[in-house]
Amino acid sequence: MKKALSFDIGGTKISFAIIDNKGNILNNIEKISTPNTKEDIYNSLKNIVNKYKNEFDIITIATAGAVNNENTKILSSTGNLPVGYNEIDFQSLSIDKKVVIENDANCSVWAEYQLGSGKDCGENIVLLTLGTGVGGGIIVNGKLLKGKSGSAGEMHFVIKNKKRACTCGFYDCYEAYASGNGLKNTAREIYNESTITTYDVINDVKKNDERAILALNEWQHDISLGIIGLVNIFDPNCVILSGSMAQFIDYKKINNFVNNNIVVQKTEIKKGYFDNNSGIIGAALFGFDKLKGED
Amino acid sequence: MKKALSFDIGGTKISFAIIDNKGNILNNIEKISTPNTKEDIYNSLKNIVNKYKNEFDIITIATAGAVNNENTKILSSTGNLPVGYNEIDFQSLSIDKKVVIENDANCSVWAEYQLGSGKDCGENIVLLTLGTGVGGGIIVNGKLLKGKSGSAGEMHFVIKNKKRACTCGFYDCYEAYASGNGLKNTAREIYNESTITTYDVINDVKKNDERAILALNEWQHDISLGIIGLVNIFDPNCVILSGSMAQFIDYKKINNFVNNNIVVQKTEIKKGYFDNNSGIIGAALFGFDKLKGED
Repeated sequence: MKKALSFDIGGTKISFAIIDNKGNILNNIEKISTPNTKEDIYNSLKNIVNKYKNEFDIITIATAGAVNNENTKILSSTGNLPVGYNEIDFQSLSIDKKVVIENDANCSVWAEYQLGSGKDCGENIVLLTLGTGVGGGIIVNGKLLKGKSGSAGEMHFVIKNKKRACTCGFYDCYEAYASGNGLKNTAREIYNESTITTYDVINDVKKNDERAILALNEWQHDISLGIIGLVNIFDPNCVILSGSMAQFIDYKKINNFVNNNIVVQKTEIKKGYFDNNSGIIGAALFGFDKLKGED
Repeated sequence: MKKALSFDIGGTKISFAIIDNKGNILNNIEKISTPNTKEDIYNSLKNIVNKYKNEFDIITIATAGAVNNENTKILSSTGNLPVGYNEIDFQSLSIDKKVVIENDANCSVWAEYQLGSGKDCGENIVLLTLGTGVGGGIIVNGKLLKGKSGSAGEMHFVIKNKKRACTCGFYDCYEAYASGNGLKNTAREIYNESTITTYDVINDVKKNDERAILALNEWQHDISLGIIGLVNIFDPNCVILSGSMAQFIDYKKINNFVNNNIVVQKTEIKKGYFDNNSGIIGAALFGFDKLKGED
């Protein structure tokens, strides 16, 4: 039985746990706030590694941002993390254990593919993490889609001509509409109020507020537009929606709408099984697969 | 030296030639008009096969429409070909030679990847065929992207909210803007004339007509929007533009615009090397690879 010390590093918090090669979380998942400097992030990780040093065979890290094809380092700066985060020498966290890094959405799809909602689905899967932003993890013929440098799966493709600014510097990207922030901005247009939050919309939907329902429907419609495109491009066995916003999707409705408007064979849109734990579990499973490759 | 009798079956014509395993066309490319019924298509192919029966080792077919993962048959009806085209029993064209079928855009990207503009580019390539419609052929880690059933690479993803109808039954798809028909429809909006053809626009551009230049620029901008999305999704080594409309692209301009607006590492957008012969050449090369797999 192999064990991983697995981290999920995001803009606001770092989660970690010991995970075995069946994907079981052996202790409770612990969480700390993400420190504000790259040095403090490194030192926090190092302290955790030292604390658990006799309890794992491999260190695995799910992280925001693009990771190289060798799974050793982060390729470029990532918006929500401190300047220089990509320069952290993760490999030096252990002198004798392997350190495997992968993008968080890629880890999520790996967890879902191996043990979750995508387990019996097939070898071609598209996963979207719907949170503050939108991430993408894609499995093609049983392997992670990484591209020439490792950054594949970025959900920045234009879906409208409304000139809504996107975090990437461009405009009208899928992320600008399908994310939690996208719902917020769509609601602000509908309410004609500039202070509405995503939380307000969700709350107002519960109160049957017509504007909130309209915003949520438009948000789901926008999500489905992107899914239609991705399904036509990848012809996947299934599409998995993960992340904090995936619970607000009407899966019956979105399955009907997408399947009625694609040109490829029918697919299935499902909610992720592991919810917010897919990152640490997926990183661990992916790391174990890398160890296996070396045996 | 292996030889293929290779066909490219489109809505208006069928091209064919004998091609060796270096991709050389050994005789002239011959062309016939595509017959109007599935029976006549089959009989035409059969006559050609009989005529050349001692001159080839394999029959290869590039075709409009989606082809299954076993490369034996067409999955569903395709708009520009006669009803029942997908029911043709291509395997019965020869009793002793293998018959390998693949989608025409997939054949094109295979030709470009093996011997054309994508030869020294890398293992991840996106190819777009810009003709009356838009086709897509994608190479991931040196293999054709086929998806669960074989239909992957369909360029039907929404890029606007203008409600322009698409051939697929949906609206605002990339094909509806980036194709030759897309240019025509964009020009009709700009000219405010419902009879303008793609040919008129190209002719008017040569005469420095401002409306035509505006339409061509908008068409190229729309093409680049889709390329930005595809590059962010696939992180490809290069993007190849093929088909009859690829000659009207300003490659310097589109390279600058795309590379300034992607979130992944820089890529290169190139014109295809084989132009309209990439289908028959790619089908042949793909077929030879299948033969090799069986040796």
